[in-house]
Amino acid sequence: MHSSVAPRLNGAVLLEQIRALGDIGIDPVNGGRTRIALTDAEKAGRDQLVAWMQELNLDVRVDRIGNIFGTLRSAIDQGDQAPLMMGSHIDTVTNAGALDGCYGVLAGLAVLRAFRDAGIQPARSITVGAFTNEEGVRYQPDMMGSLVYAGGLSVEEALETVGTDGSRLGDELQRIGYAGDLEPGAVIPHVYLELHIEQGPILEAENTLIGVVENLQGISWQKVVVQGNANHAGTTPTHLRHDAGYVAGAVVSKLREIARDSGGTTLATVGCMNLEPNVINVIARKATFTVDLRDPDEGRLQAAESSLSQFLTEIAQEEGVKISTEPLVRFQPVSFDKVLAGEIETSAKRLGFSYRRMTSGAGHDAQMVARIAPAAMIFVPSRGGISHNPREHTDEDHLLKGAEVLLDVVVRQLGLL
Amino acid sequence: MHSSVAPRLNGAVLLEQIRALGDIGIDPVNGGRTRIALTDAEKAGRDQLVAWMQELNLDVRVDRIGNIFGTLRSAIDQGDQAPLMMGSHIDTVTNAGALDGCYGVLAGLAVLRAFRDAGIQPARSITVGAFTNEEGVRYQPDMMGSLVYAGGLSVEEALETVGTDGSRLGDELQRIGYAGDLEPGAVIPHVYLELHIEQGPILEAENTLIGVVENLQGISWQKVVVQGNANHAGTTPTHLRHDAGYVAGAVVSKLREIARDSGGTTLATVGCMNLEPNVINVIARKATFTVDLRDPDEGRLQAAESSLSQFLTEIAQEEGVKISTEPLVRFQPVSFDKVLAGEIETSAKRLGFSYRRMTSGAGHDAQMVARIAPAAMIFVPSRGGISHNPREHTDEDHLLKGAEVLLDVVVRQLGLL
Repeated sequence: MHSSVAPRLNGAVLLEQIRALGDIGIDPVNGGRTRIALTDAEKAGRDQLVAWMQELNLDVRVDRIGNIFGTLRSAIDQGDQAPLMMGSHIDTVTNAGALDGCYGVLAGLAVLRAFRDAGIQPARSITVGAFTNEEGVRYQPDMMGSLVYAGGLSVEEALETVGTDGSRLGDELQRIGYAGDLEPGAVIPHVYLELHIEQGPILEAENTLIGVVENLQGISWQKVVVQGNANHAGTTPTHLRHDAGYVAGAVVSKLREIARDSGGTTLATVGCMNLEPNVINVIARKATFTVDLRDPDEGRLQAAESSLSQFLTEIAQEEGVKISTEPLVRFQPVSFDKVLAGEIETSAKRLGFSYRRMTSGAGHDAQMVARIAPAAMIFVPSRGGISHNPREHTDEDHLLKGAEVLLDVVVRQLGLL
Repeated sequence: MHSSVAPRLNGAVLLEQIRALGDIGIDPVNGGRTRIALTDAEKAGRDQLVAWMQELNLDVRVDRIGNIFGTLRSAIDQGDQAPLMMGSHIDTVTNAGALDGCYGVLAGLAVLRAFRDAGIQPARSITVGAFTNEEGVRYQPDMMGSLVYAGGLSVEEALETVGTDGSRLGDELQRIGYAGDLEPGAVIPHVYLELHIEQGPILEAENTLIGVVENLQGISWQKVVVQGNANHAGTTPTHLRHDAGYVAGAVVSKLREIARDSGGTTLATVGCMNLEPNVINVIARKATFTVDLRDPDEGRLQAAESSLSQFLTEIAQEEGVKISTEPLVRFQPVSFDKVLAGEIETSAKRLGFSYRRMTSGAGHDAQMVARIAPAAMIFVPSRGGISHNPREHTDEDHLLKGAEVLLDVVVRQLGLL
């Protein structure tokens, strides 16, 4: 069913809703908001979202893990039509910005509002999803709601999760009134689109407006412990040292080499480093540090891991230290749907916005949904690449243009143009 | 005045005195002793030392900074003869071994006991000195007593020093009864010998008994602060990073290169390292670390400092970070007396002990006395190079052989052989 009026975005309402949702859980002193999954503050955010969905007369459903779906039904949908889905999450880390997750959910609502305002009932149902506990601050793992939704974790196991505060996830879900009855994954989307801020500096640095996200990096985290010998810094010749601090420094340098030799695809970071005894004139007995390796290609990620591992073996031998490693996190890379990514690119081009293909460095609900449906993401610039911080910022103009790309893809997916 | 009986070391008494002095201030649980300068425990150590000096009928004098001198007078000494001096210190760090300092003082007493036992009155007075506050735990600077003795710091200034516990050094010296009336430096030694454990691993590693210490390294300590940008480890491409952690690692690697390129004379240590925010998936905003550079040659030490400084400038530019440095400690190298070192070598050779020329990596009272008199040091092996720790250990056989070298040098200096 077509209407003669093309759907148009109401930018003012979108920006106002981002602001209003961002005020829930806000700390007036530092300007950050905290809506950890399934807390009272997050319940308030959910209530606000549901109220907005109801204002648009959407069919609101909550599944057993608390994912919220608001659907604009097509005329032919008897509840069995695979909807076009847009989504993200509204839970936050501690002291967060207003955009991470919320932008994607509220831009989805803005798309449905555009359909409502234009009086269009689409040929395929359109759903906006807000997934439970994407951030994983209180309950592990992160991206939990979309993981359960995609069948990667049973809902029973997820509900038994015990949080950092000792609470049981299922109890908290019940307590805040978001333990729904929909079976997770009962509705498989036709396609899934997630609009998000980049949370990185690339688009800003290249002065580009739209990121066409075609894949998502694999992540490999490990803890490395180097056991050397503490000795006097003034009396121990270099060749008799077993200096855990030196070995740690050499590993840091090697990791940069691995990143550089990859031609830019492998990222390597040592974010945590502790030396013992941490005294100026004592050679470090022990160094404990973390290694964060990422690459969009599983083969290259494995090559980086194995290059590191070989270096650790060699340097342990050379320096007479013991090195042990403990895997902490390991996610394989995700490839998004090529056709859908192409559609995003086409929309950016049609709208005259600068764009580039890119890789998501962070994890997103889209990577879970990609297991069961064609999925892709749209990024807009993040000022300074800053995120998980009250200083997180994207220009309003960029927020609106990202939403226009989302709307354009949806409109074309539905054959309205 | 010669006697027909050659002076012979009483090894049993020396070892017993080391044990007895080591019991003063001991912690029965962990086996370490704590005799911080001018505390009650250190007063007890001083009282014991003075009692032993009096048993040998030495002329005991205390100067205004609390240095204790016990002298076996020659027949011709009217109080104006420059004595042959042996010495070290009896104060300790917290939880120390029994040998650092004490060994040199008590071996000096053992030499005088050998003269007493043989009934020999030497042609030149022989003094054993115990210098105040060598360790510098409570009052800065370390090696204070010998520094004042050598004229490097006025006694008035030293007495005004305020300790980490807020106490005034002069008051504590008065309180424990060791504020003497001798003017520091009133007696300049003819030569000064200091026997000490190596506090490093070289002699043990090379299976060598005697270290002929011909010089003492210069020391350069600085604090380095690297200011970068905290960013997401997954979303920030390598070329857009300002990673303080990477820069710190690169500096650690560079320092090893500087040490290696020196051919072994320059030592470089990064003992302290702290990253901020120290989170696994956040590129470090800030790295704070220390650099300990040492070399027995001032020119090479300066070359190492300048090579580091140049590297810091280059890498700050390359990585887009700010680097600041703060000098903490700077001592020039000390050359000991070549003739006296040669005499130590001759004694080791005469006694059939393995020996090597070496550099002291740590600071010692001898470096201060070297300003006013020919000085040199004798080292014996330290097991595992460990010191400032209850696990500090030198085999009794090695302790005795080191004292025999000291006695032989003294005997030959006095023309008795």
